[in-house]
Amino acid sequence: MSKHLARDLESLQRNLLGMAGRVEEAIYSAAKALRDQDVALADQVIAGDEAIDHLENELYEDCLKILALHQPVAVDLRRITATFHVTTDLERMGDLAVEIAERTVALAGSPAPPPADLLRMTDLAAGLVRQALDAFVSGDERLARRVIRLDDEVDRLHAEIIADLIARMRADPAAVEPGLSLFSACRHLERIADHATNIAEDVVYLVEGEIIRHRPESARGG
Amino acid sequence: MSKHLARDLESLQRNLLGMAGRVEEAIYSAAKALRDQDVALADQVIAGDEAIDHLENELYEDCLKILALHQPVAVDLRRITATFHVTTDLERMGDLAVEIAERTVALAGSPAPPPADLLRMTDLAAGLVRQALDAFVSGDERLARRVIRLDDEVDRLHAEIIADLIARMRADPAAVEPGLSLFSACRHLERIADHATNIAEDVVYLVEGEIIRHRPESARGG
Repeated sequence: MSKHLARDLESLQRNLLGMAGRVEEAIYSAAKALRDQDVALADQVIAGDEAIDHLENELYEDCLKILALHQPVAVDLRRITATFHVTTDLERMGDLAVEIAERTVALAGSPAPPPADLLRMTDLAAGLVRQALDAFVSGDERLARRVIRLDDEVDRLHAEIIADLIARMRADPAAVEPGLSLFSACRHLERIADHATNIAEDVVYLVEGEIIRHRPESARGG
Repeated sequence: MSKHLARDLESLQRNLLGMAGRVEEAIYSAAKALRDQDVALADQVIAGDEAIDHLENELYEDCLKILALHQPVAVDLRRITATFHVTTDLERMGDLAVEIAERTVALAGSPAPPPADLLRMTDLAAGLVRQALDAFVSGDERLARRVIRLDDEVDRLHAEIIADLIARMRADPAAVEPGLSLFSACRHLERIADHATNIAEDVVYLVEGEIIRHRPESARGG
């Protein structure tokens, strides 16, 4: 690898980490705002999304420039295409954090606290994001496979929370509207965990040089 | 451009269209199954997703091979990165069609017909997907900008349907569970239209060589 390519790839990695840090913060803040019904914090998350989108566009341009300038092959090429993918996942996670924040704003003043499991799910999903990014940066396939396995736990909690919300909404018409917001927030969290899983799958792909995205569940996370 | 590169790009385009055709069919079928409460058709959509995921992986490999073999630059490089993006959007749309089909299965036997606006939204969203893909294939920036504008109409219908569903669910506890499924289906449709908008934005990017993803709404679709 040429010195220039190495330098550009390092800079790409640094920028990706910069974006990842912002997205992680958005997810944690969105989760905290939902838990504490903190509308001011939710507004901060919403306002911060523009910066994340800007970072996505910059990363996208960086990848193109490296491809055009260095025409990398093999593992370097794979790293850049993985960076494309991870950038897309990060941007979607940022959007989902905004959507959770918007649900928090919609819930403002609602007397119903979020179900306890939703808070557990929040912590779990935010932790998955952190671990998926750690696995990406360090090329840790073992950690990546752990993220893929833990996503099942998020899905299990998700199903429990939905059942709980349905019971609340059936019992009380006043619970319908806040229930829908909690239902959405819960769904967004589950999607965030899915994107963390996508990143983990990219790590396995990078390390093993094979695609495990879309394999049947039984072949994944083994 | 070398003859080999031209041939490989043509083949890439053909494969992308093949995948797009499958995804479009999945969306139409999912919409039809929801409207007609046709569980057998919904099951077909769910079963068909594996083939779409397979096509995504093939396209992803094709892009990598072309990048490695021909090291394309400028407009060819942009077309390949746009193909990456469009492939990702198509795969997500396929997943969303499956999620709509799953809601149809969940709704089976429910006495409540979907709101009329949901059917209008379905037609509109499916039409946007078709137009976005047409715009991509023909490089039609005007059509792409039309898609971006029409997405606002989808968002408007989405808001109306949610209000209608909330009213139904508040009025009748038995409407809560089917209401949540319709709420989800509606949300998935809105996301499908968003992905069509992403593709339309890629077209504008390809044609204009600039990124309009994430511009403020007022600067888009003008």
